[in-house]
Amino acid sequence: MQFHHHGYVSTDPRVQPAAGIGLDRPEHLPDEVDVLIVGTGPAGMITAAQLAQFPDVNVRIIERRPERLAIGQADGIQARSVETFQAFGFAEAITAEAYWITEMAFWSPDAADPARIVKTSSPLDDPAGISEFKHLIVNQARVLDHFAAAALNAPGRVRPDYGWEFQSLEVDDHGEFPVVVQLLGTAHEQEGRQRTIRAKYVVGADGARSGVRRSIGCTLTGQSANHAWGVMDVLAVTDFPDIRTKCAIQSASGGNILLIPREGGYLFRMYVDLGEVSEGSDGAVRTTPIEEIIRKANDIIAPYTLDVKHVAWSSVYEVGHRITDRFDDVLPEDRGSRTPRVFITGDACHTHSAKAGQGMNVSMQDGFNIGWKLGHVLDGRAPESLLDTYSGERQVVAQNLIDFDKEWSTLMAKPASEFENPQAVSDFYTATAEFPAGFMTQYEPSQIVGDASHQELATGFPIGKRFKSARVARVADTNPLHLGHRHTADGRYRLYVFADAATPAEASATRALADWLETSPESPIAVHTPAGRDSSALLDVTVIYQQGHHDVVMNDVPDAFKPIVGPFRLVNLENVFATLPDDDIFDVRGISRAGAIVVVRPDQYVAAVLPLTATTELAAYFRGALLPAAP
Amino acid sequence: MQFHHHGYVSTDPRVQPAAGIGLDRPEHLPDEVDVLIVGTGPAGMITAAQLAQFPDVNVRIIERRPERLAIGQADGIQARSVETFQAFGFAEAITAEAYWITEMAFWSPDAADPARIVKTSSPLDDPAGISEFKHLIVNQARVLDHFAAAALNAPGRVRPDYGWEFQSLEVDDHGEFPVVVQLLGTAHEQEGRQRTIRAKYVVGADGARSGVRRSIGCTLTGQSANHAWGVMDVLAVTDFPDIRTKCAIQSASGGNILLIPREGGYLFRMYVDLGEVSEGSDGAVRTTPIEEIIRKANDIIAPYTLDVKHVAWSSVYEVGHRITDRFDDVLPEDRGSRTPRVFITGDACHTHSAKAGQGMNVSMQDGFNIGWKLGHVLDGRAPESLLDTYSGERQVVAQNLIDFDKEWSTLMAKPASEFENPQAVSDFYTATAEFPAGFMTQYEPSQIVGDASHQELATGFPIGKRFKSARVARVADTNPLHLGHRHTADGRYRLYVFADAATPAEASATRALADWLETSPESPIAVHTPAGRDSSALLDVTVIYQQGHHDVVMNDVPDAFKPIVGPFRLVNLENVFATLPDDDIFDVRGISRAGAIVVVRPDQYVAAVLPLTATTELAAYFRGALLPAAP
Repeated sequence: MQFHHHGYVSTDPRVQPAAGIGLDRPEHLPDEVDVLIVGTGPAGMITAAQLAQFPDVNVRIIERRPERLAIGQADGIQARSVETFQAFGFAEAITAEAYWITEMAFWSPDAADPARIVKTSSPLDDPAGISEFKHLIVNQARVLDHFAAAALNAPGRVRPDYGWEFQSLEVDDHGEFPVVVQLLGTAHEQEGRQRTIRAKYVVGADGARSGVRRSIGCTLTGQSANHAWGVMDVLAVTDFPDIRTKCAIQSASGGNILLIPREGGYLFRMYVDLGEVSEGSDGAVRTTPIEEIIRKANDIIAPYTLDVKHVAWSSVYEVGHRITDRFDDVLPEDRGSRTPRVFITGDACHTHSAKAGQGMNVSMQDGFNIGWKLGHVLDGRAPESLLDTYSGERQVVAQNLIDFDKEWSTLMAKPASEFENPQAVSDFYTATAEFPAGFMTQYEPSQIVGDASHQELATGFPIGKRFKSARVARVADTNPLHLGHRHTADGRYRLYVFADAATPAEASATRALADWLETSPESPIAVHTPAGRDSSALLDVTVIYQQGHHDVVMNDVPDAFKPIVGPFRLVNLENVFATLPDDDIFDVRGISRAGAIVVVRPDQYVAAVLPLTATTELAAYFRGALLPAAP
Repeated sequence: MQFHHHGYVSTDPRVQPAAGIGLDRPEHLPDEVDVLIVGTGPAGMITAAQLAQFPDVNVRIIERRPERLAIGQADGIQARSVETFQAFGFAEAITAEAYWITEMAFWSPDAADPARIVKTSSPLDDPAGISEFKHLIVNQARVLDHFAAAALNAPGRVRPDYGWEFQSLEVDDHGEFPVVVQLLGTAHEQEGRQRTIRAKYVVGADGARSGVRRSIGCTLTGQSANHAWGVMDVLAVTDFPDIRTKCAIQSASGGNILLIPREGGYLFRMYVDLGEVSEGSDGAVRTTPIEEIIRKANDIIAPYTLDVKHVAWSSVYEVGHRITDRFDDVLPEDRGSRTPRVFITGDACHTHSAKAGQGMNVSMQDGFNIGWKLGHVLDGRAPESLLDTYSGERQVVAQNLIDFDKEWSTLMAKPASEFENPQAVSDFYTATAEFPAGFMTQYEPSQIVGDASHQELATGFPIGKRFKSARVARVADTNPLHLGHRHTADGRYRLYVFADAATPAEASATRALADWLETSPESPIAVHTPAGRDSSALLDVTVIYQQGHHDVVMNDVPDAFKPIVGPFRLVNLENVFATLPDDDIFDVRGISRAGAIVVVRPDQYVAAVLPLTATTELAAYFRGALLPAAP
């Protein structure tokens, strides 16, 4: 965390100085906004928190409810989400209050006495160390609270406008605010009031029954529901020994349970199999009383019993798998001839079972993706064509999720007797761990994702996948740190210069690159940094030397890696790194000893891997991703 | 963090449910209070935060200033303090915003050219792994903010009463509120107003010029000041290569600097040697202008230079070492015949140099010590004699601090030319690391500290020293955790039962102890737990089995280790632990394979080590520390 360089900060440094619209943000919803976000779920809130880092963008987020969500349905937090929370400053805080999944246990009928369940395996949740972040369970309401704090503490000082419901929109492709949105007040002094708001862009984060989706003519298509589950968050006394461990339980009597222990040491969630639902039953299963769900749960966990003392929340639902074919308002035939004005995210685009704990996670990555892109376009640093990459990137991810979840939820619903291999569920869980952890996303080459022609220079940073952090030593203060954890959601690209073997003082490809970055008119810093801004305003340049930190002499390090910042023109010494003797990032991430440049997008995805000498390609990458600054 | 067991908690679980006085705490200072704390510095604030965990205690904390401290003088946070912050719930949050000392560098005149300084060594700050917590630098104002949040979020909902100055007090040893305190309003609507407040107890945390100390007839005695230092918190541009590393710099020209990098990546503090001050100079040195301090600093760091861009704070002071002979209002001749009513803490008791970064840390341990003792006495669970242990325990610590700091500050002020061994300062720093880290405190046997007759059963938990955490596996959720980090500042004693080698199901000394704890009328749970409270309300009983977590069957674990809690009578399964295969706490902490009981005080100090069979001694310990509950 860097602060004090604009003057002494006495109070919480997480509260960033207000700027732009954040200096005097209107209390009430104005008639014209840059971005209108519809819905304060996980997808909407991360979009708002990201855009709050662009204080020249006037963003508002509306919510039909009169106030914050008290209890949400989602609770699974994959490691990629915690990594994302780290970028928004609250990974540690939410981890401290969450349940942490260390192992998962699998229970099946005892071969000797199938009326009894027994534990068949308990694999580690992340045996391969996919991430340094944990796999958590915590209620969605708390995730939203943390994003709300991040949005409010950001320079744009964004806070939700509660009590406004989306009605409809039209894109009138003229003028500065082409999207015309009709709203209805649902609470507070605006209750019953109709309003028309004009926006440059609209983000629909309004859930499975999205009105924004309907307005842009998208429909969810896919398999309809045919298997019902009861879900309950309860406090109970039980002799089931793994009640505080995540479990998949298969009974011989037919019926399965997914048990999810919850934060706080006592509460747990059970998904209880209610069986196949016949076509045309018209949702009758949804009236299943909670007593019936509890009875069914007791049947499944026999010989153990469950005495429910308090039901915090419960519901019955049927599993469907549906997805939209596009995530914005550009029809296939118009793609390339106009850029999108309306986007949909999260459940508005993809609905599926809750079993794999993916929904909230994928939704947040939707929002993270569109958030920085809108910020870049609206503050003038990137071309509008950037917005065209959103739908393509995220639609593929959603389709993969649907495919994965179909497989997982089918396994979860399959009677134990139908498995040839009693370990089949456990084996699938272990074999596919990277997907539900959130790290299988790999974006295709595009205007912001380079090709793989130099991938061999940094095999541990696959192009298009998220930058997987590793440990380094910060030279200035000798702290061992995770390199990737510096990448906060500030909207900046990262340019990691992994040095060649020379010391900082010696003539080398690293020094030549530094000189080019610092002095060439072709350098992305020169081309894209607006007048009057710090050289690091758009692009955070970091160097990692191969030496240990005692062998990197700070005064020999080129100025390109020690940017001048703020009103006092101070030197930022915290971008210079060395290797740790017992954990060398060059080995850990397969980086060439000849050095490499790794470019990372604002949402932490690897954009390019290049040789240190590839200044032309580097300049070309940024000419595609960013606009030249106004002269 | 445990929650939801009293019903679903939708909002931040760090905000504990209000109780007692916290349900309707008066906004304004009442005429009668249980505890009046004078001063909102580190000692006062930790006392308030601790007492806020006792919601039946009416505690108020007054402060002469009209509002929170904007910038404080102290900034060194030893690992013991971070451990303490963990108990109050904010170790991670403050660590994230602080500077972390990994190494310290020592600079001395170059033998070849004494006009130039060179680095002579850079030892690790904690090479021996004294603590799993970091050594931090962060401004005192932020420490106070975090304690203020902890006090406000605790059941007692304590918040400071700003704008009241202590004038005097008298102890009128009659009636329920025997301490009569005169206050003067200094701000807000009470400005200029005199008030008389009656209190059961007063804690003076009012600094080096303490009025409370004066009122109880204590005086600071010791060495008067004779060496002056300028101190400045500045933003600067410099070519001194270690500007972001803690450094002791000795110059040949005479004069030394202690350099303390500060939080945020740019700010740093320098203590600049201003030399000996002659007797009778009457503080003339204190008018030394900041320009002179900066010039002197430039002289010392030659050939490097320092261009100060902004001075956030600066001061000049003379080092003295002074201490009071008692920390309460009981004269030596009265000790034993009456118990104290007035206590002094922190700088009111001990003043010394800032060089070792100890003041704030020792002050907080003063406050932690008196806080829980007042809580125990006032809520009726402990005898008044407990309060007699405060002065004795903390006066010894303060004397040790004075002795250490004299040695360190003398070394720091000694010209380089006078050292035979140029590594002398570095060697002293390395050899004494445990003291400034805060872990050398060892309380003597007393009514709350047992003797060492069974110390060999747990050699890694020295009686009288703080419980040094180690890692274990929590059986219920298989999480690897630090055992000691469960010990929050909730005022409870901890009773760790390190099991013998038997499994939970087998007849064993562990089972026999569990049965005795659960069923014997002599059990401390039976004797001391008030009617209607959970069995774990005063005493948190934990078991650590020698087996790995897969070999501990939860249903075999005795009920004494699975306490029933809250209105729904739920089972707390989180007190049952196993060993980690690669980090066995029995080996790491030298615990006998025959098992051991380790009793830990509410302030995390080891109170007793006993065999599993020592039920008589265990009962006797608690009969000394606690009162029997009302029948």
